[in-house]
Amino acid sequence: MESNKKLLTVQEIRASDQGQQVAGKFLILDKVYRKTKDGKDMHNLKLGDSSGEIDAVVWENCKLTGSLENGAVIGILGDIGNFAGKTQITAKIIKVLAEEDPHLYLKQVENRDELIERFERFLKMPEDPYISMLIQEVFSKDIKEKFFHTPAAKRIHHNYPGGLLEHTVMVADLCLKAADAYPELNRDLLLCGALLHDLAKVDEYQNGITPQYTVEGKLLGHIVMGSEMISHSITNLRSEGLDFPQRLEWMIKHMLLSHHGSLEFGSPVIPLFPEAFVLHVMDNLDAKMYVFQAKIQDKDGEEEHFTNYDSFFAQQFFTYRYQYTDDEQKD
Amino acid sequence: MESNKKLLTVQEIRASDQGQQVAGKFLILDKVYRKTKDGKDMHNLKLGDSSGEIDAVVWENCKLTGSLENGAVIGILGDIGNFAGKTQITAKIIKVLAEEDPHLYLKQVENRDELIERFERFLKMPEDPYISMLIQEVFSKDIKEKFFHTPAAKRIHHNYPGGLLEHTVMVADLCLKAADAYPELNRDLLLCGALLHDLAKVDEYQNGITPQYTVEGKLLGHIVMGSEMISHSITNLRSEGLDFPQRLEWMIKHMLLSHHGSLEFGSPVIPLFPEAFVLHVMDNLDAKMYVFQAKIQDKDGEEEHFTNYDSFFAQQFFTYRYQYTDDEQKD
Amino acid sequence: MESNKKLLTVQEIRASDQGQQVAGKFLILDKVYRKTKDGKDMHNLKLGDSSGEIDAVVWENCKLTGSLENGAVIGILGDIGNFAGKTQITAKIIKVLAEEDPHLYLKQVENRDELIERFERFLKMPEDPYISMLIQEVFSKDIKEKFFHTPAAKRIHHNYPGGLLEHTVMVADLCLKAADAYPELNRDLLLCGALLHDLAKVDEYQNGITPQYTVEGKLLGHIVMGSEMISHSITNLRSEGLDFPQRLEWMIKHMLLSHHGSLEFGSPVIPLFPEAFVLHVMDNLDAKMYVFQAKIQDKDGEEEHFTNYDSFFAQQFFTYRYQYTDDEQKD
Amino acid sequence: MESNKKLLTVQEIRASDQGQQVAGKFLILDKVYRKTKDGKDMHNLKLGDSSGEIDAVVWENCKLTGSLENGAVIGILGDIGNFAGKTQITAKIIKVLAEEDPHLYLKQVENRDELIERFERFLKMPEDPYISMLIQEVFSKDIKEKFFHTPAAKRIHHNYPGGLLEHTVMVADLCLKAADAYPELNRDLLLCGALLHDLAKVDEYQNGITPQYTVEGKLLGHIVMGSEMISHSITNLRSEGLDFPQRLEWMIKHMLLSHHGSLEFGSPVIPLFPEAFVLHVMDNLDAKMYVFQAKIQDKDGEEEHFTNYDSFFAQQFFTYRYQYTDDEQKD
Amino acid sequence: MESNKKLLTVQEIRASDQGQQVAGKFLILDKVYRKTKDGKDMHNLKLGDSSGEIDAVVWENCKLTGSLENGAVIGILGDIGNFAGKTQITAKIIKVLAEEDPHLYLKQVENRDELIERFERFLKMPEDPYISMLIQEVFSKDIKEKFFHTPAAKRIHHNYPGGLLEHTVMVADLCLKAADAYPELNRDLLLCGALLHDLAKVDEYQNGITPQYTVEGKLLGHIVMGSEMISHSITNLRSEGLDFPQRLEWMIKHMLLSHHGSLEFGSPVIPLFPEAFVLHVMDNLDAKMYVFQAKIQDKDGEEEHFTNYDSFFAQQFFTYRYQYTDDEQKD
Amino acid sequence: MESNKKLLTVQEIRASDQGQQVAGKFLILDKVYRKTKDGKDMHNLKLGDSSGEIDAVVWENCKLTGSLENGAVIGILGDIGNFAGKTQITAKIIKVLAEEDPHLYLKQVENRDELIERFERFLKMPEDPYISMLIQEVFSKDIKEKFFHTPAAKRIHHNYPGGLLEHTVMVADLCLKAADAYPELNRDLLLCGALLHDLAKVDEYQNGITPQYTVEGKLLGHIVMGSEMISHSITNLRSEGLDFPQRLEWMIKHMLLSHHGSLEFGSPVIPLFPEAFVLHVMDNLDAKMYVFQAKIQDKDGEEEHFTNYDSFFAQQFFTYRYQYTDDEQKD
Repeated sequence: MESNKKLLTVQEIRASDQGQQVAGKFLILDKVYRKTKDGKDMHNLKLGDSSGEIDAVVWENCKLTGSLENGAVIGILGDIGNFAGKTQITAKIIKVLAEEDPHLYLKQVENRDELIERFERFLKMPEDPYISMLIQEVFSKDIKEKFFHTPAAKRIHHNYPGGLLEHTVMVADLCLKAADAYPELNRDLLLCGALLHDLAKVDEYQNGITPQYTVEGKLLGHIVMGSEMISHSITNLRSEGLDFPQRLEWMIKHMLLSHHGSLEFGSPVIPLFPEAFVLHVMDNLDAKMYVFQAKIQDKDGEEEHFTNYDSFFAQQFFTYRYQYTDDEQKD
Repeated sequence: MESNKKLLTVQEIRASDQGQQVAGKFLILDKVYRKTKDGKDMHNLKLGDSSGEIDAVVWENCKLTGSLENGAVIGILGDIGNFAGKTQITAKIIKVLAEEDPHLYLKQVENRDELIERFERFLKMPEDPYISMLIQEVFSKDIKEKFFHTPAAKRIHHNYPGGLLEHTVMVADLCLKAADAYPELNRDLLLCGALLHDLAKVDEYQNGITPQYTVEGKLLGHIVMGSEMISHSITNLRSEGLDFPQRLEWMIKHMLLSHHGSLEFGSPVIPLFPEAFVLHVMDNLDAKMYVFQAKIQDKDGEEEHFTNYDSFFAQQFFTYRYQYTDDEQKD
Repeated sequence: MESNKKLLTVQEIRASDQGQQVAGKFLILDKVYRKTKDGKDMHNLKLGDSSGEIDAVVWENCKLTGSLENGAVIGILGDIGNFAGKTQITAKIIKVLAEEDPHLYLKQVENRDELIERFERFLKMPEDPYISMLIQEVFSKDIKEKFFHTPAAKRIHHNYPGGLLEHTVMVADLCLKAADAYPELNRDLLLCGALLHDLAKVDEYQNGITPQYTVEGKLLGHIVMGSEMISHSITNLRSEGLDFPQRLEWMIKHMLLSHHGSLEFGSPVIPLFPEAFVLHVMDNLDAKMYVFQAKIQDKDGEEEHFTNYDSFFAQQFFTYRYQYTDDEQKD
Repeated sequence: MESNKKLLTVQEIRASDQGQQVAGKFLILDKVYRKTKDGKDMHNLKLGDSSGEIDAVVWENCKLTGSLENGAVIGILGDIGNFAGKTQITAKIIKVLAEEDPHLYLKQVENRDELIERFERFLKMPEDPYISMLIQEVFSKDIKEKFFHTPAAKRIHHNYPGGLLEHTVMVADLCLKAADAYPELNRDLLLCGALLHDLAKVDEYQNGITPQYTVEGKLLGHIVMGSEMISHSITNLRSEGLDFPQRLEWMIKHMLLSHHGSLEFGSPVIPLFPEAFVLHVMDNLDAKMYVFQAKIQDKDGEEEHFTNYDSFFAQQFFTYRYQYTDDEQKD
Repeated sequence: MESNKKLLTVQEIRASDQGQQVAGKFLILDKVYRKTKDGKDMHNLKLGDSSGEIDAVVWENCKLTGSLENGAVIGILGDIGNFAGKTQITAKIIKVLAEEDPHLYLKQVENRDELIERFERFLKMPEDPYISMLIQEVFSKDIKEKFFHTPAAKRIHHNYPGGLLEHTVMVADLCLKAADAYPELNRDLLLCGALLHDLAKVDEYQNGITPQYTVEGKLLGHIVMGSEMISHSITNLRSEGLDFPQRLEWMIKHMLLSHHGSLEFGSPVIPLFPEAFVLHVMDNLDAKMYVFQAKIQDKDGEEEHFTNYDSFFAQQFFTYRYQYTDDEQKD
Repeated sequence: MESNKKLLTVQEIRASDQGQQVAGKFLILDKVYRKTKDGKDMHNLKLGDSSGEIDAVVWENCKLTGSLENGAVIGILGDIGNFAGKTQITAKIIKVLAEEDPHLYLKQVENRDELIERFERFLKMPEDPYISMLIQEVFSKDIKEKFFHTPAAKRIHHNYPGGLLEHTVMVADLCLKAADAYPELNRDLLLCGALLHDLAKVDEYQNGITPQYTVEGKLLGHIVMGSEMISHSITNLRSEGLDFPQRLEWMIKHMLLSHHGSLEFGSPVIPLFPEAFVLHVMDNLDAKMYVFQAKIQDKDGEEEHFTNYDSFFAQQFFTYRYQYTDDEQKD
């Protein structure tokens, strides 16, 4: 960028004052074009980097080098404003940076290597030979490669490459903790369900910069697709001579099918035994913990200590974090 | 039976007056035992024949020959009474008739041969070669044999051997009629969905005198099981070299998965294209038409022209059938 | 229009590229005015012709001949743009065309004559003399004239003149098909309900270019208004000496009152006998089939094969139409 | 009765100790017959007098004079017992008292004359001539005669002859009080709605000892039937030359149609103007106040100060009545 | 203001024609800033005075004297326009009027003195000494001072200083009227509940020009806060030697806790005795009567006699007020 | 007991065959009396010991020594039968055993000492001085004494003395595990909420053999009562000079008020920060784990591997426990 202005991240821009001039390098996540009354072009952009997302408006007086396309990385110089309560940048100079790798501008899972290491450790943990062999069969090298780069959701939670890995590791960890608390739980079965529960998300989203459902994902859903993937793997194991227990197959598939917990959330059956129920609870806990953490960092709220109303969750979130210090200030 | 009393059907007994002595031959559908205050045996029986079901009480003063077991056929002589608004027989003489075939005492589908003929005609109807081959692959001789003797539900509708055949033929017929009304519907695809929609019920119920869910049926449900059976058949076809279209596979499986119409009724996805929606509507229509017809024949109601309140459907049913006659009596 | 630009329909404009200049003749369906910062006028228009609807913005630099009023026909030349994901025209030249008949720019029912012919045939079909006389009494020449030009709904389905006729013919056809499938249904009673079920819509909407509820329609609703219209006709028949059966009157009125199927959809009673239930199912089927067909033609969706999310139906629609061809391309 | 035992009311029997012998004269409200194991007759009776209802069992050792029929008055001597938490009488002697008037044994509205006097005063109150004439037209001498002897409901509240009168007077009184509090309310319109709101209940229940719905009542419901009765009266007034305002007709009918307050409670439209809303609130208030008062007098509860759980209202009721006295005992 | 234009109220502006130039003095209730394409400032303002609220847009060509801040009073000259169906002012001249008291521009309760007088009379009404002493204890001079200036809600109803007083007086009045209608109600207890039911709203909203929830209000809610305030006052009374009845304490607190009527509206318990129920009904009645009155005065609706659809109440409102006059015009 | 029959526990009796004679010592948990047709006494009893509950019927031919009262311990000899699918004992000999301690016949929490030890360790764990002091203040010696002997619920889960202790220890343990998984959680705050969340149950149930709600518990509920107990303790701490942070007080009370997770389950507010949410999830998890474990031990189910349908949870439970063994038998 020709401006020698310091480049800011989305997060830093959000923390800046209105009216200030800022610069940064971002990925175009979404683009809407419209014609102005003078017949010239304008665009509304959704920009992002690894620290977050922000809106931008591009009027015809913006100096534009290159073509604005979804998935392109741009350098931008502009002013911070506010529209309908949301911060946005009014662009003055934009330059498309073809040489930049868009993936570097996606929110990235932190500590992927550590997560992979924990995941691999979980894979080796079951002592039950049937469960152990099933997990090995499912997580082939190819599947793992996809698995490590898939988001856990299109919106709401862990919606970035590696999010599925991160979410799966957290759910598995929470399930093992529950098995510590309740010795009557079958530890291997529960872990198996945790590792496999969102498996089919590798096929539910299209390969692309931002997660998009596949046709298969929309017509069948990852819940049923996952159950069928398990069937496929068990068929393979049996064709190799393994006498995989029939009831165990049904129980593992039941855990996948029931992990949304209730019919209205898309599970065709509800959890009928404790391991299926614990898996549902922990899946739900980790998804919502992600939301709470994201909300606490969200500074858009117009009321002190509260986020704006979130219509999906039908609530505001309280962002104040109480922490004892020797000189804690009372209010 | 030693009594030379005329043998009545359940339907005839229900039409008899209270206090009257009756005799008949019935299947024991259910049995509950209890000890009386004098330490002697008594039983509550649910008896049935092809015309319906009725309760019976067996006190210790009943002359009993043989052992009362579920699935046994008995001859019974007793008095008609009424307990809590439901007709019941107080048994005086019971003789277990080991030589009788219990299946003859189950409600039977009417005109099975005609239904099979219509069903076979439907199987041959699709002109689309992929759909035609899939249907042939699925409905092997073995599957058809099971299919023709499976009930369509445990309770509520078509809950007798052959009920699945009857329901499937009706739904297929209604779907073809809808395709006549709406030429934009893909007739072959719709028929395919109709013929396959409840397929997995052949594995959802146990082989037995009265329909019982299998463990698999309860843990997975016939909706998901059916989708997986389609997968299996398509895999077979592909392994034989058929280039089965990928989207067609997803659409057929979507029709099975969505045929309950909404998440709260156990479909993990809702109908997203018109053939899936029509299948859902016609499945629902035929199931409820069965209920209406059964209710209209139900004479237990204490109010003229109305059945008793049915808590499952949360309504009474109006049983009066208006029919024009030259001398129709006005009320 | 002074431009010799080829005139496009709404449908053709929607298929054009953004930024292109287009021209057409349309009806003003809705108009919102606002003042710009320079104190000059601007308007947001909703334009329509028989092929669909589209938004337009009119800035002060637009050459405007005539006065923009709802219900007026205009010629327009402008550029295609996109605002918030919806296509819109930025107007350059607008000329009000006073001599044009607005009704020609409303979406028209196709094949009105054929529909009227089928409708008249249905009217003559019942053999039951009471039902036959009631239908003749209700569908006086005046009512039929209104009936043939009324929409079936304000939004959602068949929302154009003649839509009520089209919907009624389809529902009647579907009901007759159901009577073929279920011989126990009273064919005449069912057909009677189908022909009368939405009758009061002739008084629920105001006479005008676009359907607007009347005060009566909003305070009472077409369901109750229809039942009262039946009462009125039967009173007339009785005053002429016809001994119209009391229960038949109640049953026909019950069919009208219950045809929305459940209390939460505005029926004060739910269907209590099979003809009432079949009418409800077929009414619902035809309304939703209209929606499916409209959605399949809707090309606004940003995802391949899927429409945008429809918040009224709480779903996306799958628009891909599978059709076998010898050289069907697999994906 | 041949026993010189003091005759007790239902209320007095409920207050007696278990195991005690009691006598009384009651109406048979309901009867269920069953055959005992010895082939002799037994009956379960629901008995009532003006103070309440109680169950009775009649074994074959009971001395019975006359025939047990619904609607008959009997003298009974027996022992108080308890079955499944409900008090019941085990009959020793029963004598059918053919000469007794069953109506004297129905719960009676208190102070009917005073209620009629208040009701007649309300009828004369409106100053608006249209409203006044409508009320006079509707409440003909015949209708009033029926109106004064109709229950307001089959169960739940005011379910005895005169209950409709009592409920209507209370609702009218509450509405007038609301008009005092909110001067912007149209007092005459509100009173009109209150007096007419449940009018059609005179035709919703069959003439009989205990309220039974008519076929018309079940197929159409009193809400729609009432609206149609208003139409009929206004048609009469107009045929006599009165220029009854069209909008006023719709508003009065809207008040009847909407008085259940929401679709799920059977109103096809919801209250759209304040008088309709106030009527709904006061109707609901009076119905529930009846329930509260009945519950407070219900002494069946096994927990001190609380009734048993009522599954219709999904709650227990707190029956303790706090009242200040100089020596109020604290707990 | 330098313009000698007549100053209009919000209500008068709403009644003016589009395109007209207007002037007035208003309070800034809310402000959103955005950057225009030319890099200059623009603002969207929500302005208000005692007669209502209106939007304004401020472009960079507006002559602005002073700084636009929430809570500031401004003089404004501009043109009336319409954006998305809502009236708005396009500002030409704005002058911040630092000397004006913002409170004078808030909607004011009418007749505050009369309301206070009625309120004080209610406080003295109870004859029960415990209830009387509790009310005196709670309504200290300080609390009353706050109470008289608190709104009854953030939105929806009585959302202005003094609204809580007005609402409380109305609810108390309605409760006393109910006690007249139902002599079995404990008049003092009911009045006590009415006076105290929304007490904690004095701490639920922040001191400010427009009502804002406090952190305590959001984390605990006024329902629980009110119950705790009662506890506190009773503890005080007991520490002074008063033997406050235990059950009376629980009943008063129950009335506060249950006054929203059902769990889904935030009451942790539902009304279990009649006074609690009546309080809930009257609270609800007064809140909705406020809405009806506001809606009837709302002239934004595009359909004659109907407001626009209100998504909170999920309905339109009928604004026509029927009133008999000798020459009432029929429609 | 005069019979030298071996005494069986409830669990052993349930495992016995129908018709067999059994003997045992049990507590009378509930008693219903009724009069037989011969005027003699009979009773239905609910009996229990530490292993479970069972029904018994006592006819007049039973030899009875002593008086049957709730809370009495009896020796009983009788025959095992079955009524409506539930096992019951028909009593032949009953002797009231006045010298027995009823508490020994209540289900007891296992390992109370170990639980108390863990609980005491949790009490000492918080490092935050405010939280630590609050916990010490709340859990006085007296409160702890009650706390260790209170059930956690009247029905559903942990419904026996010590159940509250057991449930609290489990929830605290699960919360600490969650704090391990999510370092951003405030460990001390979360533990504080876990230890206090059901505190008020010590006052919600009456002292007695079986848990009964107090009047206070029903009118206010343990959720609000607990919040008020915290207020009381913090007031005490402040009166001793501790500067307890205001926001911390609100957050702890919010955790108590919101721990049921949603309004429809009786929380007046929903969890607004992560610690409140985790507490809700873990409370729910432990309650349902109790149910799953109880259901798995329930052998009443008529279908292999499934319990009977539970209408409270609206499901059956799958009781098969998969466990790998070298010679696992496949089915």
